[in-house]
Amino acid sequence: MAAPSDEEGAVGPRCHHRSAAMLDVPFPPFCAFLGALGLLCVAMVGTWCQHWRGGFSLDGGSRTFNWHPVLMVTGLVVLYGAAALVYRLPNTWSGPKLPWKVLHGGLALGAFVLSVLGLAAVFRFHNSQGTPNMYSLHSWMGLATVLLFSCQWVAGFGAFLLPWAPAWLRALYKPIHVFFGSTILLLSVASCASGINEKLFFSLKNGTTSYKLLPAEAVFANTLGLLILVFGVLVVAALARPSWKRPDSDSPDSRQ
Amino acid sequence: MAAPSDEEGAVGPRCHHRSAAMLDVPFPPFCAFLGALGLLCVAMVGTWCQHWRGGFSLDGGSRTFNWHPVLMVTGLVVLYGAAALVYRLPNTWSGPKLPWKVLHGGLALGAFVLSVLGLAAVFRFHNSQGTPNMYSLHSWMGLATVLLFSCQWVAGFGAFLLPWAPAWLRALYKPIHVFFGSTILLLSVASCASGINEKLFFSLKNGTTSYKLLPAEAVFANTLGLLILVFGVLVVAALARPSWKRPDSDSPDSRQ
Repeated sequence: MAAPSDEEGAVGPRCHHRSAAMLDVPFPPFCAFLGALGLLCVAMVGTWCQHWRGGFSLDGGSRTFNWHPVLMVTGLVVLYGAAALVYRLPNTWSGPKLPWKVLHGGLALGAFVLSVLGLAAVFRFHNSQGTPNMYSLHSWMGLATVLLFSCQWVAGFGAFLLPWAPAWLRALYKPIHVFFGSTILLLSVASCASGINEKLFFSLKNGTTSYKLLPAEAVFANTLGLLILVFGVLVVAALARPSWKRPDSDSPDSRQ
Repeated sequence: MAAPSDEEGAVGPRCHHRSAAMLDVPFPPFCAFLGALGLLCVAMVGTWCQHWRGGFSLDGGSRTFNWHPVLMVTGLVVLYGAAALVYRLPNTWSGPKLPWKVLHGGLALGAFVLSVLGLAAVFRFHNSQGTPNMYSLHSWMGLATVLLFSCQWVAGFGAFLLPWAPAWLRALYKPIHVFFGSTILLLSVASCASGINEKLFFSLKNGTTSYKLLPAEAVFANTLGLLILVFGVLVVAALARPSWKRPDSDSPDSRQ
């Protein structure tokens, strides 16, 4: 039951506002919680690869592959989420807007660079092992996500950071940019979940470490997968929450 | 770059409204498109299991498993999406509200029953094969989704369909119900994607049908996975779109 009936008519505005106020959390503490959750995801994916999967190297073997989950979770989930939430900080609502635009675009660029490095790691691993690239649903989803992200970044840079973009184009493109902003994050966490699932089936095959027997590594990485999903859903929910959106103010920067 | 800068200040309301109007699609044709996409997903998952995976039976073997993807996609994605979108139909905005509430709850109940049957199919398959249940990340995500859905249905029934639920409780619970409505659908499509990926790795192992060689079945099921993701994202986007939401009207039913 996803879309409930609207009960405000029966409830009356006073009761409705009182009830809504009970659920009202300010953005900064929620953002701090999201930051802690994001750092926990990064720490857990690093621990998984270091402690159970043999650590990291650049030799083309499985330790090169290990850069893939770490870079994708750090870039395409956590840093991307941070970039997405920049305009929800009340500090960004007054004063010149350009520094915040640069921060938003810069964090997104950092997220993009990490995800491209993460793709390079898995391509290098596959090529050095003679494994074909781009056959699984996970790889299709993941590559589609990164391609959409590259279009999103280039279009966002062109429309919002280049000074000669016409105002009508910015207004037309803005809702598209917002829509794909959340969509890319959702595709990204879905890709992470399918990737962790796939990796555990590949890695935990034999004897007492079989995935079926749910060894400690499986519990740890399954938990990581669930936390990544929770992070993605909470970031998208924070982006969609009307009271946390930047008011349509005439900041000095946007009037110029 | 997920959350763009707000450019309305620079653009002016006239230009903004003109640009927004260019993107304005009415809900009914979009809903028809979503319906066609949902039916395509159901037809494709049925074709996959019938044509490549041996069809359906109740004998506990792999043909019993085949009910699992069909019932989950039909129930937890497509029928769930239909239930979620009921209040976006303009027909539901006037006149008595109770019939639409019953339709919303009834479709959601149908989705829930199909998903429980889908879980029963995979548990029966595992048990008859001596395979443990509930070890993979896919199974954790999927079960968490169905458990959340059961809580959502019971709480929605109690708050919105039972006449003695107090108005303050309905007002308090409504945004929670809306939030989990979209969240459950997103978890559901992420579970489907990881499940299709996992099933293809299990099934396509040998010779010319190896998943790595991307046989026709792999292309077909990967495409199905992408279409399910697109369906889920578009339903959640439709739910979030302000202009498609039911206006806060005093319908006769909600005034009583």
